[in-house]
Amino acid sequence: MSADFRALLETFENQFPQRDYVIETICPEFTSMCPKTGQPDFGELTLTYTPDKVCIELKSLKLYLHQFRNHGAFYEHVTNLILDDLVAVSQPRQMKLVAAFTPRGGIRTKVTAEYTGEASHGRAVGFGAGR
Amino acid sequence: MSADFRALLETFENQFPQRDYVIETICPEFTSMCPKTGQPDFGELTLTYTPDKVCIELKSLKLYLHQFRNHGAFYEHVTNLILDDLVAVSQPRQMKLVAAFTPRGGIRTKVTAEYTGEASHGRAVGFGAGR
Amino acid sequence: MSADFRALLETFENQFPQRDYVIETICPEFTSMCPKTGQPDFGELTLTYTPDKVCIELKSLKLYLHQFRNHGAFYEHVTNLILDDLVAVSQPRQMKLVAAFTPRGGIRTKVTAEYTGEASHGRAVGFGAGR
Amino acid sequence: MSADFRALLETFENQFPQRDYVIETICPEFTSMCPKTGQPDFGELTLTYTPDKVCIELKSLKLYLHQFRNHGAFYEHVTNLILDDLVAVSQPRQMKLVAAFTPRGGIRTKVTAEYTGEASHGRAVGFGAGR
Amino acid sequence: MSADFRALLETFENQFPQRDYVIETICPEFTSMCPKTGQPDFGELTLTYTPDKVCIELKSLKLYLHQFRNHGAFYEHVTNLILDDLVAVSQPRQMKLVAAFTPRGGIRTKVTAEYTGEASHGRAVGFGAGR
Amino acid sequence: MSADFRALLETFENQFPQRDYVIETICPEFTSMCPKTGQPDFGELTLTYTPDKVCIELKSLKLYLHQFRNHGAFYEHVTNLILDDLVAVSQPRQMKLVAAFTPRGGIRTKVTAEYTGEASHGRAVGFGAGR
Amino acid sequence: MSADFRALLETFENQFPQRDYVIETICPEFTSMCPKTGQPDFGELTLTYTPDKVCIELKSLKLYLHQFRNHGAFYEHVTNLILDDLVAVSQPRQMKLVAAFTPRGGIRTKVTAEYTGEASHGRAVGFGAGR
Amino acid sequence: MSADFRALLETFENQFPQRDYVIETICPEFTSMCPKTGQPDFGELTLTYTPDKVCIELKSLKLYLHQFRNHGAFYEHVTNLILDDLVAVSQPRQMKLVAAFTPRGGIRTKVTAEYTGEASHGRAVGFGAGR
Amino acid sequence: MSADFRALLETFENQFPQRDYVIETICPEFTSMCPKTGQPDFGELTLTYTPDKVCIELKSLKLYLHQFRNHGAFYEHVTNLILDDLVAVSQPRQMKLVAAFTPRGGIRTKVTAEYTGEASHGRAVGFGAGR
Amino acid sequence: MSADFRALLETFENQFPQRDYVIETICPEFTSMCPKTGQPDFGELTLTYTPDKVCIELKSLKLYLHQFRNHGAFYEHVTNLILDDLVAVSQPRQMKLVAAFTPRGGIRTKVTAEYTGEASHGRAVGFGAGR
Repeated sequence: MSADFRALLETFENQFPQRDYVIETICPEFTSMCPKTGQPDFGELTLTYTPDKVCIELKSLKLYLHQFRNHGAFYEHVTNLILDDLVAVSQPRQMKLVAAFTPRGGIRTKVTAEYTGEASHGRAVGFGAGR
Repeated sequence: MSADFRALLETFENQFPQRDYVIETICPEFTSMCPKTGQPDFGELTLTYTPDKVCIELKSLKLYLHQFRNHGAFYEHVTNLILDDLVAVSQPRQMKLVAAFTPRGGIRTKVTAEYTGEASHGRAVGFGAGR
Repeated sequence: MSADFRALLETFENQFPQRDYVIETICPEFTSMCPKTGQPDFGELTLTYTPDKVCIELKSLKLYLHQFRNHGAFYEHVTNLILDDLVAVSQPRQMKLVAAFTPRGGIRTKVTAEYTGEASHGRAVGFGAGR
Repeated sequence: MSADFRALLETFENQFPQRDYVIETICPEFTSMCPKTGQPDFGELTLTYTPDKVCIELKSLKLYLHQFRNHGAFYEHVTNLILDDLVAVSQPRQMKLVAAFTPRGGIRTKVTAEYTGEASHGRAVGFGAGR
Repeated sequence: MSADFRALLETFENQFPQRDYVIETICPEFTSMCPKTGQPDFGELTLTYTPDKVCIELKSLKLYLHQFRNHGAFYEHVTNLILDDLVAVSQPRQMKLVAAFTPRGGIRTKVTAEYTGEASHGRAVGFGAGR
Repeated sequence: MSADFRALLETFENQFPQRDYVIETICPEFTSMCPKTGQPDFGELTLTYTPDKVCIELKSLKLYLHQFRNHGAFYEHVTNLILDDLVAVSQPRQMKLVAAFTPRGGIRTKVTAEYTGEASHGRAVGFGAGR
Repeated sequence: MSADFRALLETFENQFPQRDYVIETICPEFTSMCPKTGQPDFGELTLTYTPDKVCIELKSLKLYLHQFRNHGAFYEHVTNLILDDLVAVSQPRQMKLVAAFTPRGGIRTKVTAEYTGEASHGRAVGFGAGR
Repeated sequence: MSADFRALLETFENQFPQRDYVIETICPEFTSMCPKTGQPDFGELTLTYTPDKVCIELKSLKLYLHQFRNHGAFYEHVTNLILDDLVAVSQPRQMKLVAAFTPRGGIRTKVTAEYTGEASHGRAVGFGAGR
Repeated sequence: MSADFRALLETFENQFPQRDYVIETICPEFTSMCPKTGQPDFGELTLTYTPDKVCIELKSLKLYLHQFRNHGAFYEHVTNLILDDLVAVSQPRQMKLVAAFTPRGGIRTKVTAEYTGEASHGRAVGFGAGR
Repeated sequence: MSADFRALLETFENQFPQRDYVIETICPEFTSMCPKTGQPDFGELTLTYTPDKVCIELKSLKLYLHQFRNHGAFYEHVTNLILDDLVAVSQPRQMKLVAAFTPRGGIRTKVTAEYTGEASHGRAVGFGAGR
């Protein structure tokens, strides 16, 4: 399913690959559907990454995220899914995604997932990452 | 007593166990009773954890916390009790609970307790954790 | 003199001594007298500590602080004196006291003192502690 | 192209070269043109550096930045270009440039690039640098 | 010139030399003259230090800073000069001075200088110090 | 039902009846139960009134409000009920009650009711009163 | 078209019709589609009204607003349409709707429409209403 | 009792009696004693007035307010008492006193009293004055 | 000159002419040139109006304002000029323009001009309009 | 004395005399000397006026205010003096000056004076003007 979504993502060449620099992109208008209740959820995504060969094109990122508008997904999973898609398409040196959702039932939730390079699976991110 | 309370907590399978990611859940509507004065106390709980096999289901967390509504407990103890319950039920890789209570007598208090894995009892958390 | 003041401080048993957790207590209504001008000073105290065998009882802390209401003391000294009293009474694992005073002559001052266990005298606290 | 731009930059002698101190300069009125749409972009630049032999003269920095007013450049590139110019002219011990752009299409972006001395090319900056 | 200025600075005995504690003093009403334009500059000084044998007396600090009211000095130099004066007079264990100036020409500047003890000349302060 | 609740309210003599002055009391810790879902609701009450012969005693107001802790009531009705009780007990010259409830389902609600003296039933309050 | 949308709106009896009181409901999660670009728009609706015979049921209001999720409408029109629907269904004594949309192209817009009773068509609302 | 207190208040000649201008003085460091519990209360006083023949000297105002430091008084009464004293001493054209006290038992209170000239006793102040 | 500028402004039909409603549009990215120094000025425009037969199309408003990017104009005049253009093109029932410029020489300025219908020339706007 | 000061003030022709518009100028860097203590005072001036034939030139306003840098003046008088100078030089239709001074002795003061045209002496400004 997500493979289809990621087809909309485009990249462009990173003209400064010799430098490890950081791009932070904030998308305060993310919305998806709760798979349990069928009601819309709303949140703000903060993507931070160090590009390697390519950068993520911002308009394509916007269109990619719009696909979740009528798509059911739990907070924890959608955050990990989007991170997987962005890593697959842009092969960054490092990437972190923070998704902060608006309150439901008096409770609000923020999910933080991080990709730290090829060897990162199974590695423990610093616990302070949620801040 | 707390064993009864924790019966309301439910979990669901963590679909990304290969990644150490962080879930932060903020509950600004926590209330319990002061065991000394019988008057209600109010506070905001911030739970931060890295799931292992399961995640904590949010609606069950809300119902679990509602049980403290008419229950007498000191600030310091209730924070540690809730952390113990959440660790017992979800067996996280790491978990931190911050409980910030509203002022009484011109004084306000925040209690921070942390679980850092099986070997953590007796271990010193970083002192900056209270921030 | 301070020995008399500390007689008002009470403690209660720490029920979770196996865990290093942190208690932060903020007292925004501290007031003492300037020994030079005889005019009142005002400040906010932030006490952060990891209890060992006992916790500090909050109402007794409030009454202890009220004793400074008509007592003359310089900013730098009163902060260290209060820290000494609280350490003596509660024997914490660690303790930090930040005292932020309101402006006088267009200048405002914050004093940060820290106790880091039995061997801490002569030790250098991290310089960032004043933040 | 940028070589021409940097001709406007002036420096003056650093009178305290024996001390590693830090100068932070914030320019909230940066504007350039989007090379794709021809529409103006707006952002805030934060330059932080430790001078070596010279400091950057602020009025010349202002005039240098004005040159981008009618100049087309992508976010990622303009940030790296300006950093290169400022490093070339002032040869600092360290320098960081953060460029925070206003929202476009509901998305806002911040780019952080850092120069850490002669040997820094190919080095990984701390990933937290984007904060 | 600065030698004359520092004659106004007074100190008093540090009664807690056995403890490394931190004093932060914020002076939001600093003003000097721009040596180029003859126009007044305005800024906020934040002084943070660990006293050794003496503390800086606050009223004398205020009078010392008033001397810059009609004195011409560049941002970068005045910050280093004041730090030198305060170090010379109080011989602290550590001292940091942050001077944040109000905008000129749409640009605002903050200078951070640090003294880290007798051996600190030529040492690199942590680059994050400007924050 | 409400008649029972109001039995807890106490008053004391207004010593300045010759002056029309205003007392504003803010209770940020109001909680009741949703009669539909059985879940707790939370809100902040702001009471503003001009006393006539008596003032409302604050501790009794606190105890009166605690009675709603396990009581089911809709937002709109509980606000009007509380206003009726407070008017009945204190017979003020004027009184306004604003109840601001925390979000439910992504929606938050504030109810404003006003008593403007004996003849006020049927009178239109200024429409701006909800602000 | 809007007639169909309003079928979802439900009301309940106003139990305090003898008093002119004010209900303010804030919906920060409104989203619709731009009819020109097909891209989603986001905004916050603030509804303020004095009920007459009925109040608007909040859950039905939420479901009513969700219908705009995939519906194309200009800012100015959607605001007036929603006001018309809410007036038709609840026949309030007065009602005001403020719709504040997030930025597009560096520009953000807020539309304020007001119903002031049966005779209000053609009447001039106070010009300050937009604030 | 208050007559004694007001002996400390001093005035100086208003040099612009031909103009009705307004002086606002904010005293955030007011403290008195609760006559019931013997515990200290804290608040911020905001005095606003139009002087007639004299203005209130600020240092004497500070000393006057210090007299309440160990004096027992209810919120409602102390506000009216201070207003009476200031009116008696300075005979202003108009005067308003707002006293905002810090929370006790989760409740905070603000009292607003106003003098509107010789004929003001028995007059109704605008009800919005408490804002 | 301005006649040429206004050629870019477009309008669309107001579909709710029977209602006096208010549209507020905020443009935080306005920039022009200072005619004296040749340096860029920056400001935020807030346009508030009640449409009559037509509304102002937002994309054309953006393009219209971009024309001032390299155009020299004093604060006071550019505000009045833009108001004149917008009135001429859209013939609103009422219109207000507030232009808040960023600091120059430590001074910042806000200009507020208002059109109140055909008879408004020579009329005094409420003096509070600058707020 | 003030007559000399006002010689620095310059004006330029108001090109829109047919419209009553409002210019607000904020000067956050005002400083003068306390005539009693010889110590510097600091404040923020907010000037609001409707020009008639001329506008006040901003650079000359800045130079005019710099004259108070080493000039002793009480808060209440300096505010009225500056208003008199600005009225004398620019003959506005209306003018208001608010001077907000930083705290001294824990007390901060704001003075508001208003000129409302030729007939305004002896007139009562709205008492709310101090806000």
